[in-house]
Amino acid sequence: MRPLHRLFRIPPGLSLAVLLLALPLSAASDMLPSWRDTPTRQAIVDFVVATTTPNSAQYVPPAERIAVFDNDGTLWSEKPAYFQLMFALERVRALAPQHPEWKETEPFKSALAGDMAGLAAGGEHAVLELIMASHAGNTSEEFQAIVKDWLATARHPQTRRPFDQMIYAPMRELLDYLRANGYKTFIVSGGGVEFMRAFAERTYGIPPEQAIGSSIVTEYEVRDGKPVIVRLPKIDFIDDKAGKPVGIHKFIGRRPVMAFGNSDGDFQMLEWTTTGPGPRFGALVHHTDAEREYAYDRESPVGGLDRGLDEAPKRGWVLIDMARDWKRVYP
Amino acid sequence: MRPLHRLFRIPPGLSLAVLLLALPLSAASDMLPSWRDTPTRQAIVDFVVATTTPNSAQYVPPAERIAVFDNDGTLWSEKPAYFQLMFALERVRALAPQHPEWKETEPFKSALAGDMAGLAAGGEHAVLELIMASHAGNTSEEFQAIVKDWLATARHPQTRRPFDQMIYAPMRELLDYLRANGYKTFIVSGGGVEFMRAFAERTYGIPPEQAIGSSIVTEYEVRDGKPVIVRLPKIDFIDDKAGKPVGIHKFIGRRPVMAFGNSDGDFQMLEWTTTGPGPRFGALVHHTDAEREYAYDRESPVGGLDRGLDEAPKRGWVLIDMARDWKRVYP
Repeated sequence: MRPLHRLFRIPPGLSLAVLLLALPLSAASDMLPSWRDTPTRQAIVDFVVATTTPNSAQYVPPAERIAVFDNDGTLWSEKPAYFQLMFALERVRALAPQHPEWKETEPFKSALAGDMAGLAAGGEHAVLELIMASHAGNTSEEFQAIVKDWLATARHPQTRRPFDQMIYAPMRELLDYLRANGYKTFIVSGGGVEFMRAFAERTYGIPPEQAIGSSIVTEYEVRDGKPVIVRLPKIDFIDDKAGKPVGIHKFIGRRPVMAFGNSDGDFQMLEWTTTGPGPRFGALVHHTDAEREYAYDRESPVGGLDRGLDEAPKRGWVLIDMARDWKRVYP
Repeated sequence: MRPLHRLFRIPPGLSLAVLLLALPLSAASDMLPSWRDTPTRQAIVDFVVATTTPNSAQYVPPAERIAVFDNDGTLWSEKPAYFQLMFALERVRALAPQHPEWKETEPFKSALAGDMAGLAAGGEHAVLELIMASHAGNTSEEFQAIVKDWLATARHPQTRRPFDQMIYAPMRELLDYLRANGYKTFIVSGGGVEFMRAFAERTYGIPPEQAIGSSIVTEYEVRDGKPVIVRLPKIDFIDDKAGKPVGIHKFIGRRPVMAFGNSDGDFQMLEWTTTGPGPRFGALVHHTDAEREYAYDRESPVGGLDRGLDEAPKRGWVLIDMARDWKRVYP
């Protein structure tokens, strides 16, 4: 293939990347229209400019520009319950006719009755059982189709929007802005990786190979000459809390430069990111907006943010105040 | 950031990618100088041209252009033993003073005595024990440094070359050629992922997040306020045989378009790749070159190729005949 500099008469030795990086980055204002002009937005832009300007003391080579994002509560809403849990409940209802025993067995009985208190009483174990029953037993291709069907038809119980329209417009812009500056963007979420892969590319511009999440064990099988990946009812990896840096290490293999989360489940991810040498950036979306979204932090059973709120100032983590920093929440 | 078309006066609507793709691909001859002009090289180039030419019936959108490569025997040599095993043996020797008991315990006794027959007698279990003892018990950063030190000083027992100079020049060129055509290149190897990540970027241009391999369990720990990833002596994932499509699914999340291997350990990876819908390409490096490298296939205990050799013709897999197809083997 003809070298770029011959194509465009760029002086040899000056790569396209270098030329692009040398452009003034003021265009950030164009790329982040849903952000108000607050110190939060400025901190993000300053960091991106510093790490992408050649000869800057904080310059980070493109290959090392890794930015990681939690999903629930960071890229899209997570109330009144994780969207994936709502998917699991609907799936349990759809599968119930094949499982008459569920009418009498917990946690399915509560799930089918829509009894969230009953479900909650079963704790983490109940949720895991629901996830296994609703997420396993099919092939990866079948599961993708099921999630896509659900996304196309299901509606949020309060906003009546499709779930994938409850993503945060400012964060969606931030993903694009970072990518335009040579950052590779990853999701690092406690959510199921195959659930997220069903929409991450279309919704966030994040390809499947850059979505990291919790997973169940899969198996390769040749059925009547046709190879399939079969999903088994067995936990493979939980990508939450201290599991997040482990997941980052497993899937990315280098320490991110930027990390965005919203709850104490993201604490270790931000800690691992921001204690690395050189420039690092950590930020937490603080849900302060009861009017346009939800307001919750320390006491919330879903997306609780307590330790992070205490330690953010001394760790230099930016708090993104939804009510103050965002012009709009949803697209 | 200023759009590309304004920078280079490209008509708006015509992206740089489209322009590049529309260029004649005859330049392949420049990018594959270590390949002889045989039907093998032609098959590769034809496939790449067909899948990257817009309006071609076989066109594959850039996001789906995934090419996977086995490492041992496909990108670098694997004789007289896997290079990682030689690393493990040297590591056992280095650690022996701290383990006086190894002098009397197998497999360490054989390893320390350089008794490969004794080691082989212990089978897979012995090798796993060696790997655990030599690869675990440190942090990921320490381990990276150890592998890099080894690569800088160790020499192949027969060629006396550094191990990372025993990569195959034609395959190295192929990686570049595919990337220049919008393919994302991944390693999918039975080898240890952290071992490979210590050199894959420098040696193959493959970043850590595109290296998939076998792994041990790791744990996140904060030691005296400093977070580390600790390597535990416990197998996490074996990326071999039917584990390869599972690894591809886990880490990439979509089916590759091209797959390159060399042994029956790669069979399922090629099967999974080439049974997908649309254009697919599978190839096996056949070690036919006793003079410049090694000649082995069906009976070889390392890198055995038996079923693949039988089924390649009917599955349409290309056999890369090292002696016939490559002008040179090493860089």
